[in-house]
Amino acid sequence: MSQIKELIIHFSKLKQLKYINNLLNWDLQVYMPDGSNKGRAELISLVGELVHKKLISNKTETLISEAEQKKDLSLIDAAILREAKREYQKAIKIPTDLVVEIAKNASLGHKAWEKARKKSDFSIFRPYLTKMIDLQKQYADLINIGENRYDSLLDDYEPGATKKWLSSLFNNLAPQLQTILKKLETSGEEPDSSILENVYDAKKQWEFSNSVIEKLGFDFSIGRQDKSVHPFTTAVASEDVRITTRIIENFLPAGLFGTIHECGHALYDMGFMEEIHGTNLADGSSLGIHESQSRMYENFVGRSKEFWKYWYPRLKNLFPENLGDVALNHFYKAINTVKPSLIRVEADEITYSLHIILRFEIESLIFEDLIEVEELPQVWDEKMTELLNITPPNDAKGILQDVHWSGGAFGYFPTYTLGNLYAAQIYNDALTKNPNMPFEFTSGNFNTLLQYLRENVHQYGSIFHPRDLIHKITGEALNPEYFITYLEEKFYPIYRV
Amino acid sequence: MSQIKELIIHFSKLKQLKYINNLLNWDLQVYMPDGSNKGRAELISLVGELVHKKLISNKTETLISEAEQKKDLSLIDAAILREAKREYQKAIKIPTDLVVEIAKNASLGHKAWEKARKKSDFSIFRPYLTKMIDLQKQYADLINIGENRYDSLLDDYEPGATKKWLSSLFNNLAPQLQTILKKLETSGEEPDSSILENVYDAKKQWEFSNSVIEKLGFDFSIGRQDKSVHPFTTAVASEDVRITTRIIENFLPAGLFGTIHECGHALYDMGFMEEIHGTNLADGSSLGIHESQSRMYENFVGRSKEFWKYWYPRLKNLFPENLGDVALNHFYKAINTVKPSLIRVEADEITYSLHIILRFEIESLIFEDLIEVEELPQVWDEKMTELLNITPPNDAKGILQDVHWSGGAFGYFPTYTLGNLYAAQIYNDALTKNPNMPFEFTSGNFNTLLQYLRENVHQYGSIFHPRDLIHKITGEALNPEYFITYLEEKFYPIYRV
Repeated sequence: MSQIKELIIHFSKLKQLKYINNLLNWDLQVYMPDGSNKGRAELISLVGELVHKKLISNKTETLISEAEQKKDLSLIDAAILREAKREYQKAIKIPTDLVVEIAKNASLGHKAWEKARKKSDFSIFRPYLTKMIDLQKQYADLINIGENRYDSLLDDYEPGATKKWLSSLFNNLAPQLQTILKKLETSGEEPDSSILENVYDAKKQWEFSNSVIEKLGFDFSIGRQDKSVHPFTTAVASEDVRITTRIIENFLPAGLFGTIHECGHALYDMGFMEEIHGTNLADGSSLGIHESQSRMYENFVGRSKEFWKYWYPRLKNLFPENLGDVALNHFYKAINTVKPSLIRVEADEITYSLHIILRFEIESLIFEDLIEVEELPQVWDEKMTELLNITPPNDAKGILQDVHWSGGAFGYFPTYTLGNLYAAQIYNDALTKNPNMPFEFTSGNFNTLLQYLRENVHQYGSIFHPRDLIHKITGEALNPEYFITYLEEKFYPIYRV
Repeated sequence: MSQIKELIIHFSKLKQLKYINNLLNWDLQVYMPDGSNKGRAELISLVGELVHKKLISNKTETLISEAEQKKDLSLIDAAILREAKREYQKAIKIPTDLVVEIAKNASLGHKAWEKARKKSDFSIFRPYLTKMIDLQKQYADLINIGENRYDSLLDDYEPGATKKWLSSLFNNLAPQLQTILKKLETSGEEPDSSILENVYDAKKQWEFSNSVIEKLGFDFSIGRQDKSVHPFTTAVASEDVRITTRIIENFLPAGLFGTIHECGHALYDMGFMEEIHGTNLADGSSLGIHESQSRMYENFVGRSKEFWKYWYPRLKNLFPENLGDVALNHFYKAINTVKPSLIRVEADEITYSLHIILRFEIESLIFEDLIEVEELPQVWDEKMTELLNITPPNDAKGILQDVHWSGGAFGYFPTYTLGNLYAAQIYNDALTKNPNMPFEFTSGNFNTLLQYLRENVHQYGSIFHPRDLIHKITGEALNPEYFITYLEEKFYPIYRV
C-alpha cells in the first residue's frame, strides 16, 4: 500500500470515530431519555479519548512523515495530508486527560444548560460554565497559535482567523449596520409582523417545512429532520446527514426559517464529491463557509420575494385562517421586519451580526481574564443595551439562550457573521453568472443555485482553505461590502428609504 | 490501583464500546435513513474491531492473570473476573478480520433482509445469508467449545447449553405440547378472536401500551419506546434502556403484547444493582433468563385474567366501537386463542415453542453441513407443515419472518423456549411466596412481582451463571414440568378440557 493510501485509511477511521461522536450527540439532543446523562457522558468522553489517542499515536506521525516524502501528490491527496498534519500538530499539544475532561463536561453541561434555560436560572449552569471556561483556557494556552489565547480557539472553527482581523472587520461592520438600522427605524415605515404570531398548527408547519427543503434539494433518502431544543445539523456519514428544528406554534419563523437554515448546512454535507466521502476532507472548508450556505438559503433565498411568489400560495392554503386575507407583500415585509430583539436565532438580517459582535466582545473579555463568570449575565445585559438598545428581562432571554458555551465552543460565534459575509459575496457571484435564478425561484425551481453551489463550494469539502476557496470562487478576498450592498438593496425598498 | 480495579475499568470501557454498538444498531433499525447503510456498516465494524482488539490485547491478559493471583475476591469481583476470562478466552481464538467481516455483513444483511421480507423475495437476502452462515461456521470452528459446532454458537447466548441437552429437552417437550394442542383442538371450543382484527387506531394503541408498561414499572426517565420492523430491547447504559414495537392497526396483539414483552426485558436491564452498572456484569445472566422476564410479563402476566380485570375497562373505553359489546371473558379467550399459525412472534403459548424447535432443527442441519442455503425456504415450509400442519404461502411469512439470521444470531432461538421454561419455574416460585399477587393485579398493582424479580433476578445482572441462578431462586435445576403444568392449568379451563 502506498504511504498516502495508508494515511487516508488511518484518518478515515478517525473520521468514523467522529461520526460516532456525532451520533452520540445527535441522540443526546434528540431522543435520549432525561435520566441518561451520566452514561452518555462516559460514552462521549471515551470516543474523545479514542480519537485523541489515535491522533497522537506514533503511527500518525510516521504516516505523515512518510507521506511528506512523496512528490507530485494529487490535489486531493495533498489536501488530505495538509489537514492530517494540521490536526496532528494541534492534537499532540493536548494531553488526552484534558480532551476527556472537556468531552465529559460538555455533555453534562449541555443538560445543565437545558435545565437552566428552562428555569431561567443561570446558577444551575454556572458551575459547568466556570469549569468549561477553565478547561478552554488550558486548551488555548497549550495550543498557543497566533498572538493570543482567543486566536488558538478561533483556529478550530475558522482556520486563519485571528482576533485582530475580526476586531477590525467587526469594528467596521458594526457602525455600518447601525447606520442602516437607524435609517430603517426612522423611515416611518413599520411592517406589521403580528400575523407571524398567530397560532400555526405544529404538525402543518412541520409538513410544510419538509416540503420546502425537499424542493431545495434535501435528500430524505440520506437525511432526516427531527426536533431538538437547539436546531443543528450533523453528519453520521456523507450519506447520513441530519438536521433538527424547533417549532413554536405562535411564532412561524422559528421552525420555518430554522429548517431552511439547517437545510443549507445539510446540502453542503450531502454534496461532497464521492472521492472524499469518509476521508478527513468530508467536511466544510470552515464553519464560516459552512454558515454561508445556511444563511444563503435562510435569508438570501428563503426570505426573498421570489421564493415566496412560489411558496406563499401554498402556505396560505395550509393556514387560510391566518393568511387568507394577507397579501404576499404584507407577508414578505413581515418576514423581513427589522427590529432589535433579544434572541439571536430569531434576529433579522441587520441586527443579527450585532448579536454576534456582543458574543465576540464577551468571549474576548473572558479569555483575556478580564471578567468573572458570575459577572457574565450582567455584562451580557449591559452590552445588549449598548449595542441593540434593549435589555433582557431574564437570563433565559439573555445569556442562557445559546447552547454553544455548554459544549465549550468559544470562538465559534464569529463564524456566523463571517457566514453572512461569505454568503453575500458568493451569492453575488452566483447571481452574476446566473441572472435568471430569482425568476426560476418563482416557479419553485431551485436547481440552478444548487448546481452552482455543488460545483463551486459543496463538492470540494475541505479541500481548499477558506481563504483560497473564496478567492477561487469570486476572484477576491473576503469583502464585507457585498453584504452591506445586499442589505441596502433589500431593506431600503421594504422600508421606502 | 488494585489489579481487580484495573480489570474492572478495562472491561467497563469494553462495555462502553458495546453500548456504542447498541446505539448504532438501535439507530439503524429505528431512525437511520434508507440510503445510509454503507456508512453505518463501516461504523459498526469499526466498533467491533475496537472491542475485539481491546479484548485480545496483552493488557487484558495481564490484568486477568494479575487478578487471578488475588485471594478472597468479593462475589462481584469474582464474577467480573469469571466473565472477563470467559470473554477473553473466546476472543483470542478469533482473528479481528473475522469479527470485522461479521459485523459488516450483519449490517448490510439487515437492510437486505428488510427489503427481502418486504418483497417476499428470498433471493435478495440469500447472498448475505450464505455469506453469514459461512462466517459463522468459521467462527464456530475457531471457538471449538463442546462436542460440535453448534455448541460453540450456543455458548454465546446460553452459557452451558449444548445441542445434546437441548435436543433431549425439545424431544420431550414437543410431544407434550402436541398432546395439549390436540386436546384443545378437539375440545369443540373455538374462541372467537376476530375482535382482535378490527381496526384499532395506531395512535391510541401506542398510548395504551405506554400506559400499561408505565404501570408495570418501565421508567421513562431512563428509557423510551420507538417503532421498528422487528421489536427489540437494547441498552445504551444501565440508565438508558430502549424498547421498540411494531403496531398493526388490524391486529391488536402485535403492538400490545410486543410492548409488554419488550418491557419485561427492559425491567431486567433497568434493575441491575448500582454496584454493577457499567461493568461487564450489567447484562442478563443469559438470553434464556432474559427471555424468561419478557415471556413472564407478556404471557404469565399480560395474558392473565387478573391483568385484564384491571386493564380491560380501560381498553374498552378507548375502543368502544370494537369492544363496547365484548365481555371480559370473551376478550380473555380471544387473546388466549391457541391455533397453529405462520408467524412466530404472533404465536400462542402452546405452539410458540414448536416454531422454536423448527428453527433449532434447521440450524442443526446448517451447522452439520447437511443443507444448502437455497434449500432453506423449502425445508422451512416442510418442517412447518410437519410440526404445525400449516404451510407458508410465501417466504415473507416463512423463512424471511425473523431478523436473527441476518445478524448472524445462530443458536439464539432456543433461548426463547428456555425463556418459557425458566419463566414458568420462576413465576411458580413468585406465586408460592406471594399468593396474593394475582389479586393485586386486578387493581393495577404490579409492584409485588417487580420487587420479587428485582430481588431474585434483576439486581444480579450476570453475577450468577444461569444454572446457578435458577437453583438459587427455586432450589432446583431447570424443570420443564412447571411450564407444562402452567399451560394445562391455564388452557384446559379456557377450552373446557
